[in-house]
Amino acid sequence: MPQTNPFHSLVPRKLTDSELARSIRLNIEAELDAINLYAAHLDATDNEEAKAILRHVMDEEREHAALFWQLIARLDPEQAQHDREASQKYHLITTGASHEEVEAVGEGGGAPAEVELPKRLTVGSLRK
Amino acid sequence: MPQTNPFHSLVPRKLTDSELARSIRLNIEAELDAINLYAAHLDATDNEEAKAILRHVMDEEREHAALFWQLIARLDPEQAQHDREASQKYHLITTGASHEEVEAVGEGGGAPAEVELPKRLTVGSLRK
Amino acid sequence: MPQTNPFHSLVPRKLTDSELARSIRLNIEAELDAINLYAAHLDATDNEEAKAILRHVMDEEREHAALFWQLIARLDPEQAQHDREASQKYHLITTGASHEEVEAVGEGGGAPAEVELPKRLTVGSLRK
Amino acid sequence: MPQTNPFHSLVPRKLTDSELARSIRLNIEAELDAINLYAAHLDATDNEEAKAILRHVMDEEREHAALFWQLIARLDPEQAQHDREASQKYHLITTGASHEEVEAVGEGGGAPAEVELPKRLTVGSLRK
Amino acid sequence: MPQTNPFHSLVPRKLTDSELARSIRLNIEAELDAINLYAAHLDATDNEEAKAILRHVMDEEREHAALFWQLIARLDPEQAQHDREASQKYHLITTGASHEEVEAVGEGGGAPAEVELPKRLTVGSLRK
Amino acid sequence: MPQTNPFHSLVPRKLTDSELARSIRLNIEAELDAINLYAAHLDATDNEEAKAILRHVMDEEREHAALFWQLIARLDPEQAQHDREASQKYHLITTGASHEEVEAVGEGGGAPAEVELPKRLTVGSLRK
Amino acid sequence: MPQTNPFHSLVPRKLTDSELARSIRLNIEAELDAINLYAAHLDATDNEEAKAILRHVMDEEREHAALFWQLIARLDPEQAQHDREASQKYHLITTGASHEEVEAVGEGGGAPAEVELPKRLTVGSLRK
Amino acid sequence: MPQTNPFHSLVPRKLTDSELARSIRLNIEAELDAINLYAAHLDATDNEEAKAILRHVMDEEREHAALFWQLIARLDPEQAQHDREASQKYHLITTGASHEEVEAVGEGGGAPAEVELPKRLTVGSLRK
Amino acid sequence: MPQTNPFHSLVPRKLTDSELARSIRLNIEAELDAINLYAAHLDATDNEEAKAILRHVMDEEREHAALFWQLIARLDPEQAQHDREASQKYHLITTGASHEEVEAVGEGGGAPAEVELPKRLTVGSLRK
Amino acid sequence: MPQTNPFHSLVPRKLTDSELARSIRLNIEAELDAINLYAAHLDATDNEEAKAILRHVMDEEREHAALFWQLIARLDPEQAQHDREASQKYHLITTGASHEEVEAVGEGGGAPAEVELPKRLTVGSLRK
Repeated sequence: MPQTNPFHSLVPRKLTDSELARSIRLNIEAELDAINLYAAHLDATDNEEAKAILRHVMDEEREHAALFWQLIARLDPEQAQHDREASQKYHLITTGASHEEVEAVGEGGGAPAEVELPKRLTVGSLRK
Repeated sequence: MPQTNPFHSLVPRKLTDSELARSIRLNIEAELDAINLYAAHLDATDNEEAKAILRHVMDEEREHAALFWQLIARLDPEQAQHDREASQKYHLITTGASHEEVEAVGEGGGAPAEVELPKRLTVGSLRK
Repeated sequence: MPQTNPFHSLVPRKLTDSELARSIRLNIEAELDAINLYAAHLDATDNEEAKAILRHVMDEEREHAALFWQLIARLDPEQAQHDREASQKYHLITTGASHEEVEAVGEGGGAPAEVELPKRLTVGSLRK
Repeated sequence: MPQTNPFHSLVPRKLTDSELARSIRLNIEAELDAINLYAAHLDATDNEEAKAILRHVMDEEREHAALFWQLIARLDPEQAQHDREASQKYHLITTGASHEEVEAVGEGGGAPAEVELPKRLTVGSLRK
Repeated sequence: MPQTNPFHSLVPRKLTDSELARSIRLNIEAELDAINLYAAHLDATDNEEAKAILRHVMDEEREHAALFWQLIARLDPEQAQHDREASQKYHLITTGASHEEVEAVGEGGGAPAEVELPKRLTVGSLRK
Repeated sequence: MPQTNPFHSLVPRKLTDSELARSIRLNIEAELDAINLYAAHLDATDNEEAKAILRHVMDEEREHAALFWQLIARLDPEQAQHDREASQKYHLITTGASHEEVEAVGEGGGAPAEVELPKRLTVGSLRK
Repeated sequence: MPQTNPFHSLVPRKLTDSELARSIRLNIEAELDAINLYAAHLDATDNEEAKAILRHVMDEEREHAALFWQLIARLDPEQAQHDREASQKYHLITTGASHEEVEAVGEGGGAPAEVELPKRLTVGSLRK
Repeated sequence: MPQTNPFHSLVPRKLTDSELARSIRLNIEAELDAINLYAAHLDATDNEEAKAILRHVMDEEREHAALFWQLIARLDPEQAQHDREASQKYHLITTGASHEEVEAVGEGGGAPAEVELPKRLTVGSLRK
Repeated sequence: MPQTNPFHSLVPRKLTDSELARSIRLNIEAELDAINLYAAHLDATDNEEAKAILRHVMDEEREHAALFWQLIARLDPEQAQHDREASQKYHLITTGASHEEVEAVGEGGGAPAEVELPKRLTVGSLRK
Repeated sequence: MPQTNPFHSLVPRKLTDSELARSIRLNIEAELDAINLYAAHLDATDNEEAKAILRHVMDEEREHAALFWQLIARLDPEQAQHDREASQKYHLITTGASHEEVEAVGEGGGAPAEVELPKRLTVGSLRK
């Protein structure tokens, strides 16, 4: 029986940049929610006109998610640092490196090694 | 303590077009929610970089809402009929026409009269 | 265990028109929710009396959604602009136009080209 | 983090009339929610155009609530019986009758006595 | 992960009668929710003792819903007007009258015609 | 953006008595929610007519809560045992007895000692 | 996408005893929710160690519910009155007494008659 | 139709340590929610790359839960006391000790006896 | 307008121990929610009787949380390992050790060093 | 009154990679929620020990968010494409480029131009 607050979006005061970052994280969640909705609807219909619109809109939501992610990196430099290290850590974790090796990434201060990931992963494509 | 269903977007079966229309209405709600979030955040920050991104994204959400609205009109012809009559009804309601006059719109089957609305309404601009 | 706030609709202060637009977007969502509820119930019953009432009410909710959409267009001129371009963009997207062509709509400032959509779409009616 | 079920309104099977009554009660709640939203927004704006639309729509939601209430009375005869007795019980309760007198209404099987209520109640208008 | 506000029912200030009406609408929703819960439980058990209690309580919730409905009619005279017209409109809608005929009810200001509805509707009982 | 499931109260199958007990606990929660709502509204209005109705209805919800509590005691004998011991434990806890003394209640199997509590507690009335 | 308020349990001010009663009702709901969770989990596992812990904890939640119920009776004397009458009313309702007989309980002011209920109800044990 | 509050994480004021403990309990819940999500997703996929990432992240969430648990023990010494006694009580409960024996743990003030639990429990491993 | 599912706790099938662990994590959340509720209520009242009951119940919820935590450690050995290392890691983190030192805990396989934490932390007691 | 589903994380069936992507998006939301919670709590306390733990945990949640983002890029190549273009688009949008210029990014198929963003943005650092 929870009802919607009819005044759900009044601004209490100007935000600091750290508070703004929290709002932008919320926005990323809204974009990811939307992508999931549209992806599910795409799977569930054969109506070609609807599929074309859903694909168009969903693609722009992906762009929005990427732009907000970029904005977070600007507002939260520690997130940006993790973003820079993520590709290398991802490679290590998925190829069975030890926890120690993963944690060592970025500790040395040097530039992360170039990591080349295959274009698309498929079940069973790893650890052959 | 409600937890998220970890499998929140599995497709139960293909939808009929009438069921699809319900899904698209849900999508419009997601877009309107997002517009409201971003509008509130725009009001709450002076960070120019964030404002530029928010304005860009928010503008595309408006476009998405308009496109999904168009799609609904295609899937639900009775909605389309109401869309066609809305401008005239809106004019009648806001200029004090009787309930009877408003309901008469579209009943005759003729094309709705052309209605020219002023470009932007402001408090007090009406009924001078 | 979330309980309803017993004082869920007290007005904090008069809204600006931009804040009012957010409230009206929320109202559109309420109308779309209602349409979806009634559409589902219509599908789920053979009771003719109930169906007649549901159809009558649902039709007026469609009218309300259209009227609130009109009101949004008045309060938010950028939404109105997207509404004007939506029909043409919709046509382009669903006939396979490039992303560039879609985005070009409205940029030139001219009136959008007249687009004639078929009356009702059905699965498979496109791209024959 | 609860997400919307993207397939929120698929019909599981035809309803019995008793199940349908539960759905219609849910619909009444949707109408009352909407009335509350619009009433709050009316209080919160001075924009005359918006007020005219809100008043028009809100009035039709009241009609819908009344129609669904009528439909419930048809699907649930015990509710109809309580509706017939409510005016007399209301009068007794608000004029300080004993619990016994209130409960006696309708027990005898005769037609409820005619009760004439004043047109509008105001604080302090009672028990002078 | 939403938690309940431990102080969910503190009174912010005395309500106006219009605000009180919104609270009473919320109360009607609580009553309808309860009726639906108990109706579903009645369907789901063969335990006679439980059924007797559920029937007793459910019947009083129906009475509460009727009393709160009466109270709304007192606080909101426009709702009362729609309640008076609902029976006639209901008859017109379910016997296939035109939209115009339905909307004409109550416009003339006269007393609504007496409408005699059959005691109980069943699927297929209409339009034979 | 969570929407209501339009088919929220369909019965999946007959319940066992243990499952029924869970449903009745849910019903007690619904009654307590309602009592809290009406108590808050009573505090918030000076409208005497509304107060009379709220008091009448709220009193019957208290009766319902008591009846469902009784039903739980029938369906769940261990709850009944705790209900029988609660008065004595309550007395011990609020007069500063040790944890051991509290836990000893009911362990011996004898009838709980008669405990006479004062009619109404007020802040400061204890431990003088 | 609702997020938890990170400051969900800050105390706004000292409560009156009537407000405290509302909080305690909320606590009873929390206890009943927990009992239901643990009862369901007990049904769903054969792990004996887990079952032993679940039974131990669930039993203490029943004690908590009984203690809070006692506390409510202290804070809300009208609830206490209904608790005293509940056993007799329960007996009357489940043995088919008229509504009038049920409502007469407690009206006379005398002590409620002793009612002896059988130890455990089972489907079909009534009205043989 | 509940919408997210766009300003969901603004700090109202500095917390006392007791209030901070409530916030940290909320954080533990967030960690447990995440563990449950990832555990469910691990069960639901055969994609080895995804499984490696999910296992890595889930393991760190377990560490976070343990660290926050430690922090609670620091902020809430009574919780720490229960943590110290839990292993012995757990042993007693799962080997069928009486309620009295369980409650006696920690009452004497001495150090809890060393309890050696088998490394992993399996259904049926107890009470042979 | 979300309504409670009237059949909220029916068991779909017996759980595996890994699934049971997820249920027990949910139970810990229920216990932490309850502790937070009662802690907030304790802060908000001067009613000594209520405070005594709240303290008694809250203390047992802490015990339940500790017992369920113990059960999780049994069902999820990786959580148990993190619990064993948490005290040492906690010490390192709060005394300013490097990320590397923290991560090294438990990697060597030896028993964690004994760590003696001061009995209670207060703001400012650290890093003097 | 919504209760938690006690069996909230049972796996319905193995997921396709597209369905898995939706689950991982949900996981990112859980991580962002957690970061927001901890960031708010950090702002709200002066307890140094708590701050050290919160900072440590929050930093690892950022790493998790980055790792899941990487995983999404692997499961959803169109997201990866937008991630690659985001930095350049971000630069264009925040320096006032036209909508056309922004949309042209990535259309040509060439590698995105190198864009060097300043290390940290502050209010007013732009468009001097």
